Amino acid sequence: MSTTEIQHSPAQDEAPGTTERAETQSLKSHSLAYIADDTTGIRVPVTEIALEISPNGEPNAPFRVYRTEGPGSDPVVGLEPFRAPWIEARKDTEPYSGRERNLLDDGKSAVRRGAASAEWKGTQPVPRRAVEGTTVTQMRYAKQGIITPEMQFVALRENCDVELVRSEVAAGRAIIPNNINHPESEPMIIGKAFLVKINANIGNSAVTSSIAEEVDKLQWATKWGADTVMDLSTGDDIHTTREWLIRNAPVPIGTVPIYQALEKVNGEANALTWEIYRDTVIEQCEQGVDYMTVHAGVLLRYVPLTANRVTGIVSRGGAIMAGWCLAHHQENFLYTHFDELCEIFAKYDVAFSLGDGLRPGATADANDAAQFAELDTLAELTKRAWEYDVQVMVEGPGHIPFHLVRENVERQQELCQGAPFYTLGPLVTDIAPGYDHITSAIGATEIARYGTAMLCYVTPKEHLGLPNKDDVKTGVITYKIAAHAADLAKGHPGAHERDDALSKARFEFRWRDQFALSLDPVTAESFHDETLPAEPAKTAHFCSMCGPKFCSMRISQDIRDEYGSAESQAALAEMAAGMREKSQEFLASGGKVYLPELSVGGRA
Amino acid sequence: MSTTEIQHSPAQDEAPGTTERAETQSLKSHSLAYIADDTTGIRVPVTEIALEISPNGEPNAPFRVYRTEGPGSDPVVGLEPFRAPWIEARKDTEPYSGRERNLLDDGKSAVRRGAASAEWKGTQPVPRRAVEGTTVTQMRYAKQGIITPEMQFVALRENCDVELVRSEVAAGRAIIPNNINHPESEPMIIGKAFLVKINANIGNSAVTSSIAEEVDKLQWATKWGADTVMDLSTGDDIHTTREWLIRNAPVPIGTVPIYQALEKVNGEANALTWEIYRDTVIEQCEQGVDYMTVHAGVLLRYVPLTANRVTGIVSRGGAIMAGWCLAHHQENFLYTHFDELCEIFAKYDVAFSLGDGLRPGATADANDAAQFAELDTLAELTKRAWEYDVQVMVEGPGHIPFHLVRENVERQQELCQGAPFYTLGPLVTDIAPGYDHITSAIGATEIARYGTAMLCYVTPKEHLGLPNKDDVKTGVITYKIAAHAADLAKGHPGAHERDDALSKARFEFRWRDQFALSLDPVTAESFHDETLPAEPAKTAHFCSMCGPKFCSMRISQDIRDEYGSAESQAALAEMAAGMREKSQEFLASGGKVYLPELSVGGRA
Repeated sequence: MSTTEIQHSPAQDEAPGTTERAETQSLKSHSLAYIADDTTGIRVPVTEIALEISPNGEPNAPFRVYRTEGPGSDPVVGLEPFRAPWIEARKDTEPYSGRERNLLDDGKSAVRRGAASAEWKGTQPVPRRAVEGTTVTQMRYAKQGIITPEMQFVALRENCDVELVRSEVAAGRAIIPNNINHPESEPMIIGKAFLVKINANIGNSAVTSSIAEEVDKLQWATKWGADTVMDLSTGDDIHTTREWLIRNAPVPIGTVPIYQALEKVNGEANALTWEIYRDTVIEQCEQGVDYMTVHAGVLLRYVPLTANRVTGIVSRGGAIMAGWCLAHHQENFLYTHFDELCEIFAKYDVAFSLGDGLRPGATADANDAAQFAELDTLAELTKRAWEYDVQVMVEGPGHIPFHLVRENVERQQELCQGAPFYTLGPLVTDIAPGYDHITSAIGATEIARYGTAMLCYVTPKEHLGLPNKDDVKTGVITYKIAAHAADLAKGHPGAHERDDALSKARFEFRWRDQFALSLDPVTAESFHDETLPAEPAKTAHFCSMCGPKFCSMRISQDIRDEYGSAESQAALAEMAAGMREKSQEFLASGGKVYLPELSVGGRA
Repeated sequence: MSTTEIQHSPAQDEAPGTTERAETQSLKSHSLAYIADDTTGIRVPVTEIALEISPNGEPNAPFRVYRTEGPGSDPVVGLEPFRAPWIEARKDTEPYSGRERNLLDDGKSAVRRGAASAEWKGTQPVPRRAVEGTTVTQMRYAKQGIITPEMQFVALRENCDVELVRSEVAAGRAIIPNNINHPESEPMIIGKAFLVKINANIGNSAVTSSIAEEVDKLQWATKWGADTVMDLSTGDDIHTTREWLIRNAPVPIGTVPIYQALEKVNGEANALTWEIYRDTVIEQCEQGVDYMTVHAGVLLRYVPLTANRVTGIVSRGGAIMAGWCLAHHQENFLYTHFDELCEIFAKYDVAFSLGDGLRPGATADANDAAQFAELDTLAELTKRAWEYDVQVMVEGPGHIPFHLVRENVERQQELCQGAPFYTLGPLVTDIAPGYDHITSAIGATEIARYGTAMLCYVTPKEHLGLPNKDDVKTGVITYKIAAHAADLAKGHPGAHERDDALSKARFEFRWRDQFALSLDPVTAESFHDETLPAEPAKTAHFCSMCGPKFCSMRISQDIRDEYGSAESQAALAEMAAGMREKSQEFLASGGKVYLPELSVGGRA
């Protein structure tokens, strides 16, 4: 890769869509910048955080962080399809008329009305698919040794060699979910060699809905750091909601097509057919869904293994397929038609997210026969998808007590030959509804530490209701914590730099920098201001915990001034070694206290 | 131990101090009950949760959980000194006049006013101390083979054999912090063989204060599950605030005496003396403080080891002592006078909480030379305290990246010969101020899993300000999660029962039971009601996530009805084994899909 440089955006971005003064204030040192590769012309947006000068007069270089919010869009217009030239330049895809619009795609109420409740009015892209006989997946290119612009974008974004990107994708250990019909999306990679990613679930349901709200949640989730977003809508206007989301999504969009298929048959699982499902998948491929959860591992013979569980089957898709299998005395049609699915996905570069329909919904059911039987099948399906060069990740649980978490990822990694693992938490206890973002972040950190590539967030509303905008933010921030803590634990290159920058700001009482470097500057600043609201407190060399009279940080600064130099450190190390020896002598003798006569220099 | 029985409180307790309808509603199935030992007459309060009948008509036995909130008290009256007869019956203590009240104990403003801002008006207990020449610690009794009522209380509470309690206390692997001058407190035990405990910090500071607020926080913290409470007040009225707290505390109260000592010398660390400190310790021993944090491991020679840290010394007590050592060119007086401290503590049964004044305040500083040098000294001091039969726990960090957490507890346990470890989190990343209850709960679960006995909570306000009442609750619930997740991971006997009971309620759509069994029924219920507020939704066999048309739980119930019996499970296991074999053949051959012809019984 050639040299890269930072390009600054001419104007600071102004947190579009929000007018709250507090937010603008807390985020005012954040701006949009670009890391650019001057050979390829590819540029990757980053958030640049301007920092203040240290008390000793030394400047602090602006700090750049991974940015998921994209360039921002007017919801009714959508984002620029900036990847379109890359896709067209490959000359292996073609536009086509696509599947005909069917109002039932938006449910019965749309059929009744003759339209969805808020039709998409922006540009309606012409769908593309692979030219007959070709496969247009990033995995195929990677296996052929081709470096795509998507891979270059990812390498810039991850600050790694593009060959690492290519080889991990080729080996199936990482995926770049980038449907050719979602050219608005900024390429990102999911794999254990890269930064741990997080997904945010949004979507309406039968009892609550609004398209505008869901678009707002999408923008809100990516603003705070969601790397991908899943649209799990199950109510009215499913097709149109998704259109609005994809056209405005700078991140990959995932779905669970069986949800929409179920709506098309009026919620009767037994009435589902492969044909309805396939048609739904094609509909979604043409719209630009980047990855789809497919519960093809819920085999008929595994279903009875869940009978004596404490909570049976808790995956919605898993239960749908289990119900179907039992009603028809037939094997899961997602399993029997899996090769056809691979053929379809290969035409659009849609990635599989192999659903764990039999994941445990209670800690008592963790790591049981049903769960691991399904995992065996997911491993089999992973390899089948790879034969078609279709990208695959594998979904994981769920509810797992802390000591059993590690086994999940290690087993998955072994059986699925390193295919990215994508887990929901897991929650390490069942007893805290209302706080399951926390119970699950604990398990998520553990499972990511051992190699899980993407974490699906859990919000405080888990088990209780649908997340509102606040819950989405809480879920995203909580999962950024888990993902980052795992990056640190894995020793991911550079992961500690943000911690170190923030801690340095904290030590130097650069309050504004401490807020700005945090995952949620708005909350950090508002919490600070609850106790010490005045503006001078932002530059005060104390905080509300100890008050102005005494400050541990100040004493530490004094210590550093006195002992921080290399010379005094070396001298002290020598003395300390001697003293420890003396101290051990003292302990051995049980004698009177040893007072070292260190010349340490006094202070008033 | 003789047989125990459950005694019911005649009336349901009604969440004293709160009038909110929502809370009363959510907690109405909670009542106070007692586990009693009919030989000793000792009875331990528990919270009993009444449960509804299962859909299949089977009743669910009431579920009992560990209760920390005590019998409830009117703040201006305080709690009954119910342990007083136990203490007096031992005939090894005597009342005495005690130290004379000094208005400076409450700071300069009290001296100016001639009184604290809200003097304690309840009964002023006469202080007791050990009869000359005796040691009245639970450790001494335990070593002598004496089973005290405190040990019996603890055994009932932990549902374990009293000999386990006695032997762990005798060995120093557990402590029962119970100052003889705090007879209102309900005995509890801190040790890795027992349930993981949590501590909540409260206390005023120079910039914010009110005695009533602190008492309210105490009651609030214990209501939600705090096992001990530390009063970290650093502002006005320190003595009197503590009096109010201790007289109302059903749990052990911990302090950091150096904080008050510093106030007595107007915040000038250099002006501290052993005499002022000793006097403060005696003042607090007489009031009934159960354990005290003593930063005796901050040795002069360790101070320079912190000079090149990212955040230096972040412990307030650690910085005070480091500042003092440097200013005087002398060894830490807490270290040089440690034996005298042991003699004092032995007279009141105050436990040491050996402070980790050099704990890391940034992940970059974790597990460094300064931290581990101090730990060596804490190990030495542990053994010295044990020579006086004084109970000891050892404090731990702090900020530690996830992969370095385990080493902390294993090293402490080895060096300190199993003395209970008591850690602050640790926080596994520095980048989330505003969410440090979460960053630290992740580390807390990991460190407790490997043997930490008590976790000091961290609230969302950590690093930013002082916790308000909401923050106290959030901190407590978050730490109950960490402690319980660790209990589960350790396989602590019975720990999983609450998870299983809640999961069963969830599976059976017993919404009210699901709320009642959760750590925070009020929040769980209110979150549920945000989406489905109507009362019928509490008995609905669906939830807002899937809506009424389709429900995974319902399908699971059908599966159980069909396959749940022992006979069908055995038959299915056999068939599954056969099918797996066939499936493997299929895979090996790469042939067409195998459709098992299982006779599974149809459903419309």
